[in-house]
Amino acid sequence: METLKIVKIGGNIIDNDKELSSFLDQFSTINGPKILVHGGGKLASKLAEQLAIPVKMNHGRRITDAATLDVITMVYAGKINKTIVSKLQSFNCNAVGLSGADGNCIVSKKRPLKDIDYGFVGDVIKVNTETLDLLISQGITPVLCAITHDEKGQLLNTNADTIAAELAIAFASTYYTSLYYCFEKNGVLRDVTDEDSIIETINATTYNQLIKNGSVAEGMLPKLNNCMYAVENKVVEVCIGRPKMLFDESAKCTKIIL
Amino acid sequence: METLKIVKIGGNIIDNDKELSSFLDQFSTINGPKILVHGGGKLASKLAEQLAIPVKMNHGRRITDAATLDVITMVYAGKINKTIVSKLQSFNCNAVGLSGADGNCIVSKKRPLKDIDYGFVGDVIKVNTETLDLLISQGITPVLCAITHDEKGQLLNTNADTIAAELAIAFASTYYTSLYYCFEKNGVLRDVTDEDSIIETINATTYNQLIKNGSVAEGMLPKLNNCMYAVENKVVEVCIGRPKMLFDESAKCTKIIL
Repeated sequence: METLKIVKIGGNIIDNDKELSSFLDQFSTINGPKILVHGGGKLASKLAEQLAIPVKMNHGRRITDAATLDVITMVYAGKINKTIVSKLQSFNCNAVGLSGADGNCIVSKKRPLKDIDYGFVGDVIKVNTETLDLLISQGITPVLCAITHDEKGQLLNTNADTIAAELAIAFASTYYTSLYYCFEKNGVLRDVTDEDSIIETINATTYNQLIKNGSVAEGMLPKLNNCMYAVENKVVEVCIGRPKMLFDESAKCTKIIL
Repeated sequence: METLKIVKIGGNIIDNDKELSSFLDQFSTINGPKILVHGGGKLASKLAEQLAIPVKMNHGRRITDAATLDVITMVYAGKINKTIVSKLQSFNCNAVGLSGADGNCIVSKKRPLKDIDYGFVGDVIKVNTETLDLLISQGITPVLCAITHDEKGQLLNTNADTIAAELAIAFASTYYTSLYYCFEKNGVLRDVTDEDSIIETINATTYNQLIKNGSVAEGMLPKLNNCMYAVENKVVEVCIGRPKMLFDESAKCTKIIL
């Protein structure tokens, strides 16, 4: 089986023009099939603020109301996605930017109203790989933003880490799939203030220990959950760390394995 | 040769949610290969106003500065393009939304600075049909917004009518290509106040007469120029009129022929 690399980048890279360009330049050099998934960054919050769209919270969770969804759609699928695609083209990487609505590639369901109404937030229910595979088979790199749809005409805000994991899982039966979560630390750290305290390998057993100990930073938990979910569903390798883990064999990162 | 229909819609349809849905519902029923090209509508101006981005004019022409380009990218490639794609999916039309940067499908060149600096406005220099054809061949409908790129990482604002004409011309050697400009009138009118005064056919000779007479409304001129440009370059048929010309055999419109 051919290897497919799925790479997720977040705000820390997206918010810095120079860093983004440098990353995309290197990303373009990755041989073979690859998919880029991007989150949002600060631009969406900034735009919402400029438009005086109030940040709505419910029990500490952000609510995506209709106005916020519009902002997210404009920033993620518009500004960020097209900036990335045009930069990749300038580095001779033929890319096509997509939301989950495009090619019906990621179908989600509006999160059911229980204690909290999250608004227009979607949980992934299906990945259709046909269009993505069509592009990949022609050497084209799909660039996915964190917006999905419900097949009934509603766009939905969906976590980019989850989208990356779902894509990796959907392709795991046809590709030797690796998933890379790029962020601003060297990996999962034992001590969040010490970049050298990387936990180099996490498996199901150590994962449960880490959670029990409470030794994983709170922000890391959803990311780690996505990682475990991926390796439990035939994704061969999941790595968390700085982008250099993709390009530099000697760069350390955290590998999540079964 | 198979027929390819290229349909351009503008602000008059896009600005009205109900009209847009109704149009897309009908558009979905068109059998065979089709491409939708959309302009902007009032949303971009509204957003620019909300963000207090001044409208910059030079000798009566609007200038696309960097802030305006961001707004256009967010609105055209983000909000409008993804709204259209998700609605088409809900009508069982598998669509993929694209800018000219995606798949490198429309390459443009920043308009050279002469008397007027238009800012980030691009004139089309090349259409690459490969990715579009790849999608069309799988029954997928490309939905193009009016943003192109220069292959060097710069997005550029490009007239949607021109994009539609350039696409039609690029496909004219492999498809029997028809081009439809949908707008808010029954066609090119002899008397702009009389919807029944449709000029049913315009060819190169009558086109020149109309221009000489000054009997074409000023706003129609660039559109008509694009039409003549298309038919002069092997596009089989170009029609201007209300969207119903696409779905109703008895609906009148203006046909531009050689």
